[in-house]
Amino acid sequence: MNIPSKILENAVDEIATLPGVGKRTALRYALSLLNMQDGEFASFVGSLTTLKSESHYCSQCHCISDTPVCPICSSVKRNHSIVCVVENIQEVMAIENTGQYQGVYHVLGGVISPLDGIGINDLTIAQLLSRVEAGGIEEVILALPTTMEGDTTNIYIDRQLQRFPSVKVTTIARGIAIGDNLEYADEVTLGRSIVNRIPFSMS
Amino acid sequence: MNIPSKILENAVDEIATLPGVGKRTALRYALSLLNMQDGEFASFVGSLTTLKSESHYCSQCHCISDTPVCPICSSVKRNHSIVCVVENIQEVMAIENTGQYQGVYHVLGGVISPLDGIGINDLTIAQLLSRVEAGGIEEVILALPTTMEGDTTNIYIDRQLQRFPSVKVTTIARGIAIGDNLEYADEVTLGRSIVNRIPFSMS
Repeated sequence: MNIPSKILENAVDEIATLPGVGKRTALRYALSLLNMQDGEFASFVGSLTTLKSESHYCSQCHCISDTPVCPICSSVKRNHSIVCVVENIQEVMAIENTGQYQGVYHVLGGVISPLDGIGINDLTIAQLLSRVEAGGIEEVILALPTTMEGDTTNIYIDRQLQRFPSVKVTTIARGIAIGDNLEYADEVTLGRSIVNRIPFSMS
Repeated sequence: MNIPSKILENAVDEIATLPGVGKRTALRYALSLLNMQDGEFASFVGSLTTLKSESHYCSQCHCISDTPVCPICSSVKRNHSIVCVVENIQEVMAIENTGQYQGVYHVLGGVISPLDGIGINDLTIAQLLSRVEAGGIEEVILALPTTMEGDTTNIYIDRQLQRFPSVKVTTIARGIAIGDNLEYADEVTLGRSIVNRIPFSMS
Protein backbone atom coordinates (compact mmCIF):
# COMPACT_ATOMS: atom_id res chain seq x y z
CA MET A 1 0.00 0.00 0.00
CA ASN A 2 1.16 3.49 -0.88
CA ILE A 3 0.06 5.46 2.17
CA PRO A 4 0.67 9.17 1.42
CA SER A 5 1.55 10.12 5.03
CA LYS A 6 4.29 8.73 7.31
CA ILE A 7 2.24 9.51 10.45
CA LEU A 8 -0.70 7.55 9.08
CA GLU A 9 1.56 4.74 7.91
CA ASN A 10 3.09 4.47 11.37
CA ALA A 11 -0.36 4.24 13.00
CA VAL A 12 -1.44 1.63 10.42
CA ASP A 13 1.68 -0.45 11.15
CA GLU A 14 0.96 -0.35 14.88
CA ILE A 15 -2.72 -1.23 14.49
CA ALA A 16 -1.77 -4.12 12.16
CA THR A 17 0.04 -5.79 15.11
CA LEU A 18 -3.40 -6.64 16.59
CA PRO A 19 -4.40 -10.28 15.97
CA GLY A 20 -6.04 -10.90 12.59
CA VAL A 21 -5.68 -7.28 11.44
CA GLY A 22 -4.09 -6.66 8.03
CA LYS A 23 -2.88 -3.37 6.58
CA ARG A 24 -6.17 -2.63 4.83
CA THR A 25 -8.28 -3.16 7.97
CA ALA A 26 -5.73 -1.20 10.00
CA LEU A 27 -6.09 1.72 7.57
CA ARG A 28 -9.86 1.57 7.98
CA TYR A 29 -9.51 1.71 11.78
CA ALA A 30 -6.94 4.52 11.57
CA LEU A 31 -9.18 6.68 9.36
CA SER A 32 -12.10 6.00 11.67
CA LEU A 33 -10.01 7.16 14.66
CA LEU A 34 -8.96 10.23 12.68
CA ASN A 35 -12.60 11.10 11.98
CA MET A 36 -13.59 10.80 15.67
CA GLN A 37 -14.47 13.91 17.67
CA ASP A 38 -11.66 14.91 20.06
CA GLY A 39 -13.72 13.85 23.08
CA GLU A 40 -14.54 10.45 21.58
CA PHE A 41 -10.88 9.91 20.73
CA ALA A 42 -9.74 10.88 24.24
CA SER A 43 -12.25 8.44 25.74
CA PHE A 44 -11.06 5.70 23.32
CA VAL A 45 -7.37 6.12 24.17
CA GLY A 46 -8.18 6.66 27.85
CA SER A 47 -10.02 3.34 28.08
CA LEU A 48 -6.98 1.54 26.61
CA THR A 49 -4.44 3.17 28.94
CA THR A 50 -6.71 2.52 31.94
CA LEU A 51 -7.03 -1.11 30.85
CA LYS A 52 -3.25 -1.41 30.61
CA SER A 53 -2.36 0.39 33.83
CA GLU A 54 -5.22 -0.46 36.18
CA SER A 55 -6.46 -3.94 35.37
CA HIS A 56 -5.72 -6.61 37.95
CA TYR A 57 -5.71 -10.36 37.89
CA CYS A 58 -7.52 -12.48 40.46
CA SER A 59 -4.90 -13.75 42.91
CA GLN A 60 -6.42 -17.23 42.79
CA CYS A 61 -7.55 -18.02 39.22
CA HIS A 62 -5.56 -15.27 37.38
CA CYS A 63 -8.65 -14.16 35.47
CA ILE A 64 -8.95 -10.40 34.87
CA SER A 65 -10.84 -8.87 37.76
CA ASP A 66 -11.49 -5.44 39.29
CA THR A 67 -11.22 -6.93 42.79
CA PRO A 68 -8.19 -8.77 44.29
CA VAL A 69 -10.23 -12.00 44.25
CA CYS A 70 -12.69 -12.39 41.36
CA PRO A 71 -16.45 -12.90 41.93
CA ILE A 72 -16.22 -16.59 40.91
CA CYS A 73 -13.35 -17.40 43.30
CA SER A 74 -14.99 -15.48 46.16
CA SER A 75 -18.45 -17.04 45.65
CA VAL A 76 -19.61 -19.51 48.30
CA LYS A 77 -22.04 -21.03 45.79
CA ARG A 78 -19.20 -22.43 43.65
CA ASN A 79 -17.58 -25.81 44.21
CA HIS A 80 -13.98 -24.94 45.09
CA SER A 81 -12.84 -28.57 44.92
CA ILE A 82 -13.07 -28.64 41.11
CA VAL A 83 -10.67 -26.46 39.07
CA CYS A 84 -11.05 -26.04 35.31
CA VAL A 85 -7.75 -25.11 33.61
CA VAL A 86 -8.22 -22.86 30.57
CA GLU A 87 -5.94 -20.91 28.26
CA ASN A 88 -7.52 -17.46 28.49
CA ILE A 89 -10.33 -15.39 29.91
CA GLN A 90 -12.44 -15.96 26.75
CA GLU A 91 -12.77 -19.65 27.66
CA VAL A 92 -13.93 -18.71 31.18
CA MET A 93 -16.63 -16.53 29.61
CA ALA A 94 -17.64 -19.27 27.15
CA ILE A 95 -17.95 -21.92 29.90
CA GLU A 96 -19.79 -19.49 32.22
CA ASN A 97 -22.30 -18.81 29.43
CA THR A 98 -23.27 -22.51 29.32
CA GLY A 99 -24.44 -22.33 32.96
CA GLN A 100 -23.32 -25.99 33.29
CA TYR A 101 -20.23 -25.52 35.44
CA GLN A 102 -20.26 -24.81 39.17
CA GLY A 103 -16.55 -25.23 39.92
CA VAL A 104 -13.79 -22.62 39.75
CA TYR A 105 -11.16 -21.82 37.12
CA HIS A 106 -7.44 -21.45 36.61
CA VAL A 107 -6.35 -19.21 33.71
CA LEU A 108 -2.92 -20.22 32.35
CA GLY A 109 -2.47 -17.12 30.20
CA GLY A 110 -1.46 -19.20 27.18
CA VAL A 111 -0.12 -22.63 26.31
CA ILE A 112 3.47 -23.90 26.06
CA SER A 113 4.70 -22.82 22.64
CA PRO A 114 8.49 -22.74 22.12
CA LEU A 115 8.04 -21.25 18.62
CA ASP A 116 6.25 -18.20 20.09
CA GLY A 117 8.74 -18.06 22.96
CA ILE A 118 6.13 -19.10 25.56
CA GLY A 119 7.70 -21.39 28.15
CA ILE A 120 6.49 -22.96 31.39
CA ASN A 121 7.52 -19.90 33.42
CA ASP A 122 5.41 -17.55 31.29
CA LEU A 123 2.26 -19.42 32.34
CA THR A 124 0.60 -19.76 35.74
CA ILE A 125 1.39 -23.50 36.04
CA ALA A 126 3.42 -23.04 39.26
CA GLN A 127 0.49 -21.15 40.79
CA LEU A 128 -1.86 -24.00 39.79
CA LEU A 129 0.42 -26.52 41.52
CA SER A 130 0.53 -24.32 44.64
CA ARG A 131 -3.28 -24.21 44.69
CA VAL A 132 -3.42 -28.02 44.46
CA GLU A 133 -0.69 -28.37 47.08
CA ALA A 134 -2.63 -26.14 49.47
CA GLY A 135 -5.28 -28.88 49.50
CA GLY A 136 -9.03 -28.99 49.08
CA ILE A 137 -8.93 -29.69 45.35
CA GLU A 138 -10.33 -33.05 44.22
CA GLU A 139 -10.45 -32.67 40.45
CA VAL A 140 -8.54 -30.71 37.82
CA ILE A 141 -10.31 -30.45 34.45
CA LEU A 142 -7.98 -29.72 31.52
CA ALA A 143 -9.88 -27.61 28.96
CA LEU A 144 -7.00 -26.42 26.75
CA PRO A 145 -7.25 -26.21 22.94
CA THR A 146 -6.69 -29.41 20.93
CA THR A 147 -3.55 -28.16 19.25
CA MET A 148 -0.04 -29.54 19.56
CA GLU A 149 0.75 -26.75 22.04
CA GLY A 150 -2.43 -27.45 24.02
CA ASP A 151 -1.67 -31.19 24.13
CA THR A 152 1.92 -30.54 25.25
CA THR A 153 0.65 -28.31 28.05
CA ASN A 154 -1.94 -30.93 29.04
CA ILE A 155 0.74 -33.62 29.27
CA TYR A 156 3.09 -31.37 31.24
CA ILE A 157 0.40 -30.39 33.79
CA ASP A 158 -0.80 -34.00 34.07
CA ARG A 159 2.77 -35.16 34.87
CA GLN A 160 3.19 -32.46 37.51
CA LEU A 161 -0.13 -33.44 39.08
CA GLN A 162 1.01 -37.08 39.50
CA ARG A 163 2.57 -35.84 42.75
CA PHE A 164 -0.95 -35.52 44.14
CA PRO A 165 -2.47 -39.00 43.66
CA SER A 166 -5.72 -38.01 45.37
CA VAL A 167 -6.43 -35.41 42.67
CA LYS A 168 -8.39 -36.69 39.67
CA VAL A 169 -7.25 -35.22 36.32
CA THR A 170 -9.96 -35.10 33.64
CA THR A 171 -10.41 -33.41 30.26
CA ILE A 172 -13.54 -32.07 28.55
CA ALA A 173 -15.33 -34.47 26.17
CA ARG A 174 -14.40 -34.11 22.51
CA GLY A 175 -16.82 -35.49 19.92
CA ILE A 176 -19.43 -34.69 17.32
CA ALA A 177 -21.19 -31.42 18.12
CA ILE A 178 -24.91 -31.58 19.01
CA GLY A 179 -26.89 -31.32 15.77
CA ASP A 180 -23.91 -32.11 13.52
CA ASN A 181 -24.11 -34.68 10.75
CA LEU A 182 -21.65 -37.63 11.09
CA GLU A 183 -21.12 -37.57 7.33
CA TYR A 184 -19.45 -34.16 7.46
CA ALA A 185 -17.53 -34.58 10.73
CA ASP A 186 -13.74 -34.65 10.47
CA GLU A 187 -12.19 -38.11 10.77
CA VAL A 188 -10.14 -37.42 13.90
CA THR A 189 -13.15 -36.15 15.85
CA LEU A 190 -15.42 -38.97 14.62
CA GLY A 191 -12.72 -41.56 15.41
CA ARG A 192 -12.25 -40.20 18.92
CA SER A 193 -15.99 -40.02 19.53
CA ILE A 194 -16.24 -43.78 18.80
CA VAL A 195 -13.20 -44.73 20.92
CA ASN A 196 -14.45 -42.57 23.82
CA ARG A 197 -18.10 -43.71 23.59
CA ILE A 198 -20.17 -43.47 26.77
CA PRO A 199 -23.11 -45.46 28.20
CA PHE A 200 -26.40 -44.41 26.58
CA SER A 201 -28.77 -42.38 28.72
CA MET A 202 -31.94 -40.51 27.89
CA SER A 203 -30.84 -37.18 29.43
CA MET B 1 -21.08 -11.21 26.93
CA ASN B 2 -20.37 -11.45 30.63
CA ILE B 3 -17.05 -9.67 30.93
CA PRO B 4 -15.78 -10.11 34.50
CA SER B 5 -14.08 -6.68 34.73
CA LYS B 6 -15.59 -3.20 34.25
CA ILE B 7 -12.26 -1.79 33.08
CA LEU B 8 -12.00 -4.47 30.40
CA GLU B 9 -15.66 -4.05 29.47
CA ASN B 10 -15.17 -0.31 29.03
CA ALA B 11 -12.17 -0.87 26.73
CA VAL B 12 -14.13 -3.49 24.76
CA ASP B 13 -17.05 -1.07 24.32
CA GLU B 14 -14.70 1.63 23.04
CA ILE B 15 -12.88 -0.70 20.63
CA ALA B 16 -16.24 -1.97 19.34
CA THR B 17 -16.98 1.55 18.00
CA LEU B 18 -14.41 0.92 15.24
CA PRO B 19 -16.03 0.04 11.88
CA GLY B 20 -16.89 -3.65 11.51
CA VAL B 21 -15.68 -4.59 15.01
CA GLY B 22 -18.08 -6.56 17.23
CA LYS B 23 -17.76 -7.25 20.94
CA ARG B 24 -15.97 -10.56 20.46
CA THR B 25 -13.32 -9.11 18.14
CA ALA B 26 -12.98 -6.09 20.44
CA LEU B 27 -12.29 -8.44 23.37
CA ARG B 28 -9.62 -10.18 21.31
CA TYR B 29 -7.96 -6.85 20.54
CA ALA B 30 -8.23 -5.72 24.19
CA LEU B 31 -6.59 -8.89 25.51
CA SER B 32 -3.87 -8.57 22.90
CA LEU B 33 -3.19 -4.98 24.04
CA LEU B 34 -3.17 -6.18 27.65
CA ASN B 35 -0.54 -8.82 26.81
CA MET B 36 1.74 -6.30 25.06
CA GLN B 37 5.03 -5.25 26.65
CA ASP B 38 4.83 -1.77 28.19
CA GLY B 39 7.11 -0.35 25.46
CA GLU B 40 5.03 -1.90 22.67
CA PHE B 41 1.86 -0.54 24.23
CA ALA B 42 3.31 2.96 24.61
CA SER B 43 4.38 2.93 20.97
CA PHE B 44 0.89 1.70 19.93
CA VAL B 45 -0.97 4.43 21.84
CA GLY B 46 1.66 7.01 20.87
CA SER B 47 1.17 6.34 17.16
CA LEU B 48 -2.59 6.89 17.54
CA THR B 49 -2.29 10.15 19.48
CA THR B 50 0.33 11.42 17.01
CA LEU B 51 -2.00 10.52 14.16
CA LYS B 52 -4.84 12.41 15.79
CA SER B 53 -2.89 15.49 16.84
CA GLU B 54 -0.30 15.91 14.09
CA SER B 55 -1.76 14.73 10.82
CA HIS B 56 -2.53 17.41 8.25
CA TYR B 57 -4.66 17.57 5.17
CA CYS B 58 -3.39 18.82 1.82
CA SER B 59 -4.71 22.36 1.40
CA GLN B 60 -5.70 21.60 -2.20
CA CYS B 61 -7.06 18.05 -2.42
CA HIS B 62 -7.75 17.46 1.32
CA CYS B 63 -5.94 14.14 1.24
CA ILE B 64 -3.93 13.26 4.38
CA SER B 65 -0.42 14.58 3.93
CA ASP B 66 2.66 15.30 6.04
CA THR B 67 3.34 18.46 3.99
CA PRO B 68 0.96 21.46 3.53
CA VAL B 69 0.52 20.48 -0.14
CA CYS B 70 0.58 16.74 -0.88
CA PRO B 71 3.11 15.17 -3.29
CA ILE B 72 0.43 14.64 -5.94
CA CYS B 73 -0.83 18.24 -5.87
CA SER B 74 2.72 19.63 -5.86
CA SER B 75 3.95 17.39 -8.71
CA VAL B 76 4.64 19.12 -12.04
CA LYS B 77 4.23 15.77 -13.82
CA ARG B 78 0.50 15.59 -12.99
CA ASN B 79 -2.22 17.12 -15.17
CA HIS B 80 -3.75 19.78 -12.92
CA SER B 81 -6.64 20.45 -15.33
CA ILE B 82 -8.35 17.13 -14.45
CA VAL B 83 -9.73 16.64 -10.92
CA CYS B 84 -11.04 13.28 -9.74
CA VAL B 85 -13.57 13.62 -6.90
CA VAL B 86 -13.44 10.70 -4.42
CA GLU B 87 -15.01 9.93 -1.05
CA ASN B 88 -11.90 9.08 0.95
CA ILE B 89 -8.16 8.61 0.92
CA GLN B 90 -8.58 4.86 0.28
CA GLU B 91 -9.96 5.61 -3.19
CA VAL B 92 -6.97 7.88 -3.94
CA MET B 93 -4.69 4.97 -3.02
CA ALA B 94 -6.70 2.50 -5.14
CA ILE B 95 -6.65 4.75 -8.22
CA GLU B 96 -2.94 5.57 -7.73
CA ASN B 97 -2.19 1.83 -7.64
CA THR B 98 -3.65 1.40 -11.15
CA GLY B 99 -1.03 3.79 -12.59
CA GLN B 100 -3.68 4.87 -15.16
CA TYR B 101 -4.46 8.34 -13.84
CA GLN B 102 -2.26 11.40 -14.29
CA GLY B 103 -4.66 14.08 -13.01
CA VAL B 104 -5.14 15.31 -9.45
CA TYR B 105 -7.74 14.51 -6.78
CA HIS B 106 -10.29 16.10 -4.52
CA VAL B 107 -11.17 14.16 -1.35
CA LEU B 108 -14.70 14.96 -0.12
CA GLY B 109 -14.31 13.25 3.25
CA GLY B 110 -17.62 11.39 2.84
CA VAL B 111 -20.86 11.58 0.87
CA ILE B 112 -24.11 13.40 1.65
CA SER B 113 -25.98 11.15 4.09
CA PRO B 114 -28.75 12.78 6.17
CA LEU B 115 -29.28 9.55 8.12
CA ASP B 116 -25.68 9.66 9.36
CA GLY B 117 -25.91 13.40 9.94
CA ILE B 118 -23.49 14.21 7.08
CA GLY B 119 -24.59 17.32 5.23
CA ILE B 120 -23.08 19.46 2.48
CA ASN B 121 -21.10 21.57 4.95
CA ASP B 122 -19.39 18.49 6.44
CA LEU B 123 -17.78 17.76 3.07
CA THR B 124 -15.21 19.70 1.06
CA ILE B 125 -17.68 20.57 -1.73
CA ALA B 126 -17.28 24.36 -1.23
CA GLN B 127 -13.51 23.93 -1.51
CA LEU B 128 -13.97 21.94 -4.74
CA LEU B 129 -16.09 24.75 -6.21
CA SER B 130 -13.45 27.31 -5.16
CA ARG B 131 -10.78 25.27 -6.95
CA VAL B 132 -12.92 25.19 -10.11
CA GLU B 133 -13.72 28.90 -9.77
CA ALA B 134 -10.00 29.70 -9.53
CA GLY B 135 -9.73 28.45 -13.12
CA GLY B 136 -7.45 26.03 -14.93
CA ILE B 137 -9.72 23.00 -14.44
CA GLU B 138 -11.18 21.47 -17.61
CA GLU B 139 -12.68 18.25 -16.32
CA VAL B 140 -14.14 16.97 -13.05
CA ILE B 141 -14.40 13.17 -12.80
CA LEU B 142 -16.98 11.98 -10.25
CA ALA B 143 -15.74 8.69 -8.72
CA LEU B 144 -18.09 8.37 -5.75
CA PRO B 145 -19.63 5.03 -4.68
CA THR B 146 -22.75 3.82 -6.49
CA THR B 147 -25.00 4.08 -3.44
CA MET B 148 -28.00 6.34 -2.95
CA GLU B 149 -25.78 8.68 -0.94
CA GLY B 150 -23.06 8.64 -3.62
CA ASP B 151 -25.61 9.34 -6.37
CA THR B 152 -27.15 12.20 -4.37
CA THR B 153 -23.71 13.73 -3.91
CA ASN B 154 -22.93 13.28 -7.62
CA ILE B 155 -26.15 15.07 -8.58
CA TYR B 156 -25.53 17.91 -6.12
CA ILE B 157 -21.96 18.49 -7.31
CA ASP B 158 -23.02 18.26 -10.97
CA ARG B 159 -25.69 20.94 -10.40
CA GLN B 160 -23.22 23.23 -8.66
CA LEU B 161 -20.75 22.78 -11.52
CA GLN B 162 -23.35 23.93 -14.10
CA ARG B 163 -22.17 27.46 -13.19
CA PHE B 164 -18.94 26.67 -15.01
CA PRO B 165 -20.08 25.61 -18.53
CA SER B 166 -16.50 25.20 -19.76
CA VAL B 167 -15.86 22.42 -17.20
CA LYS B 168 -16.68 18.91 -18.43
CA VAL B 169 -18.24 16.68 -15.76
CA THR B 170 -17.62 12.94 -16.25
CA THR B 171 -17.98 9.80 -14.16
CA ILE B 172 -15.95 6.59 -14.12
CA ALA B 173 -17.20 3.74 -16.33
CA ARG B 174 -19.41 1.16 -14.63
CA GLY B 175 -19.77 -2.24 -16.24
CA ILE B 176 -18.81 -5.88 -16.18
CA ALA B 177 -15.41 -6.34 -14.51
CA ILE B 178 -12.54 -7.62 -16.70
CA GLY B 179 -12.60 -11.42 -16.58
CA ASP B 180 -16.15 -11.63 -15.22
CA ASN B 181 -18.76 -13.91 -16.73
CA LEU B 182 -21.90 -12.13 -18.08
CA GLU B 183 -24.03 -14.98 -16.77
CA TYR B 184 -23.21 -14.17 -13.14
CA ALA B 185 -23.19 -10.37 -13.42
CA ASP B 186 -25.95 -8.53 -11.54
CA GLU B 187 -28.77 -7.21 -13.75
CA VAL B 188 -28.27 -3.53 -12.98
CA THR B 189 -24.58 -3.61 -13.92
CA LEU B 190 -25.20 -5.70 -17.05
CA GLY B 191 -28.09 -3.43 -18.09
CA ARG B 192 -25.97 -0.32 -17.64
CA SER B 193 -23.04 -1.86 -19.51
CA ILE B 194 -25.31 -2.41 -22.55
CA VAL B 195 -26.89 1.08 -22.40
CA ASN B 196 -23.46 2.70 -21.99
CA ARG B 197 -21.71 0.57 -24.66
CA ILE B 198 -18.65 2.12 -26.32
CA PRO B 199 -17.07 1.80 -29.80
CA PHE B 200 -15.02 -1.39 -30.10
CA SER B 201 -11.26 -0.98 -30.14
CA MET B 202 -8.44 -3.51 -29.95
CA SER B 203 -6.63 -1.77 -27.06
